Amino acid sequence: MLEPQEIVDKMMLTDRMSQWLGLEIKSYTPGNVIVEMTVRQEMVNGFEIAHGGITYSLADSVLAFSSNAHGLQAVSIETSISHLKPVHVGDRLTSNSTEISLTKRIGVYHIEIFNQEKLMVATFKGTIYRSGKEWE
Amino acid sequence: MLEPQEIVDKMMLTDRMSQWLGLEIKSYTPGNVIVEMTVRQEMVNGFEIAHGGITYSLADSVLAFSSNAHGLQAVSIETSISHLKPVHVGDRLTSNSTEISLTKRIGVYHIEIFNQEKLMVATFKGTIYRSGKEWE
Amino acid sequence: MLEPQEIVDKMMLTDRMSQWLGLEIKSYTPGNVIVEMTVRQEMVNGFEIAHGGITYSLADSVLAFSSNAHGLQAVSIETSISHLKPVHVGDRLTSNSTEISLTKRIGVYHIEIFNQEKLMVATFKGTIYRSGKEWE
Amino acid sequence: MLEPQEIVDKMMLTDRMSQWLGLEIKSYTPGNVIVEMTVRQEMVNGFEIAHGGITYSLADSVLAFSSNAHGLQAVSIETSISHLKPVHVGDRLTSNSTEISLTKRIGVYHIEIFNQEKLMVATFKGTIYRSGKEWE
Repeated sequence: MLEPQEIVDKMMLTDRMSQWLGLEIKSYTPGNVIVEMTVRQEMVNGFEIAHGGITYSLADSVLAFSSNAHGLQAVSIETSISHLKPVHVGDRLTSNSTEISLTKRIGVYHIEIFNQEKLMVATFKGTIYRSGKEWE
Repeated sequence: MLEPQEIVDKMMLTDRMSQWLGLEIKSYTPGNVIVEMTVRQEMVNGFEIAHGGITYSLADSVLAFSSNAHGLQAVSIETSISHLKPVHVGDRLTSNSTEISLTKRIGVYHIEIFNQEKLMVATFKGTIYRSGKEWE
Repeated sequence: MLEPQEIVDKMMLTDRMSQWLGLEIKSYTPGNVIVEMTVRQEMVNGFEIAHGGITYSLADSVLAFSSNAHGLQAVSIETSISHLKPVHVGDRLTSNSTEISLTKRIGVYHIEIFNQEKLMVATFKGTIYRSGKEWE
Repeated sequence: MLEPQEIVDKMMLTDRMSQWLGLEIKSYTPGNVIVEMTVRQEMVNGFEIAHGGITYSLADSVLAFSSNAHGLQAVSIETSISHLKPVHVGDRLTSNSTEISLTKRIGVYHIEIFNQEKLMVATFKGTIYRSGKEWE
């Protein structure tokens, strides 16, 4: 079984979407991963603020890293996000996860996203399923 | 006040994220917009299937088009998505919306995403808030 | 393994909460159960309309019946509900389920609740987990 | 405009569902209400554990008290709950709220429920809408 950092690094290597987002992984603890990114012009929606899919994708990657870093493969099955404040081009986002619950098969995570002013811009809840397959 | 198609076209013009996704709008009815896109290699996650943020972003754009096409500006406040089946590179996705409820201030939409085999790959619920400001 | 109606009847027998709600099961098809109930005075909240927990409990029972009627024990892990219209004392509610997805371990259901005027008062999504244990 | 405690007391007076649940309000701060209750035999489901509607109803009441205690009337529009651990007859539940965001019209709250062993049994997110009407 691989170490947490090895798993997350391996995921990032083929995770083209997280690469496009420009994710920078700051902490590798299973269940509590911290990731940062900067919002670019190509990430805006029709209101010229960050598309909801940007903060969602950031949180969904954090969910994937947090839940897979334990060593067993985990997939996101249900997720929800509340968009609390507009996110602008140039904003520096920091996202971190809290593992609320983890059983053999099911995990629940809270993930928050803050901007550079420490204001929470989104709150996300994710439920994952673990098939039992190990990372190797 | 603008016509539904004018509003959606105006949103798409500055919506760099929806442009990156390659969204093609097939129907412009307020409350029931149909959008298609094709999954590209740069959209995959660490499992080499489409990142959850891709189907989320597609659905969130459909939510924005559906709720804004009525003529009043609407923003997504709470959304959830269930990821039902893996989405692969080359898949052709079709997403459509159903307006469950719309009051002066709050709207609720169900949005489904199907692949080219008519299999549902994701189901999404979105709640929007309308400030009262018109599109012009 | 028991038949769908045997399973639902067995569940109802010990389900004191569903008994208190006054649930009447109208259809027993696995994945698509129809249940009715009438709202009583003791079910209201501080606004003198039905407490959100009433429509939630109705939908959560429908979720349990729908997912267990297949023969394998299933528990609700994540659920969400949108409250669309006020529900009043004396209202006759009808709730039905649609099975969106069912795999060996995970199921996703949409459940709607209508009043006697066929107006949708709530929409619910539930995710269930199946441990593999059979009903007997 | 009424004081927080006056509003919550007024709500409880007509809230027949919260009375049936046996809710005891321990803290009245707007945005952060603490409520306790004990699970009774009549609250179980077909698995002879607490029906999901019990923890949901507890959390939904906490949401109502937390969001209304500011002085403006607020209604729950979208809520989700993850059921993390089984709740048994005799369990003493404590629920508390955190106000994640509150604007003129929209509020988002996280609500947690713990049992007497300080184990989290459910986590809830609620979105409320404020019409602008004052409590009086």
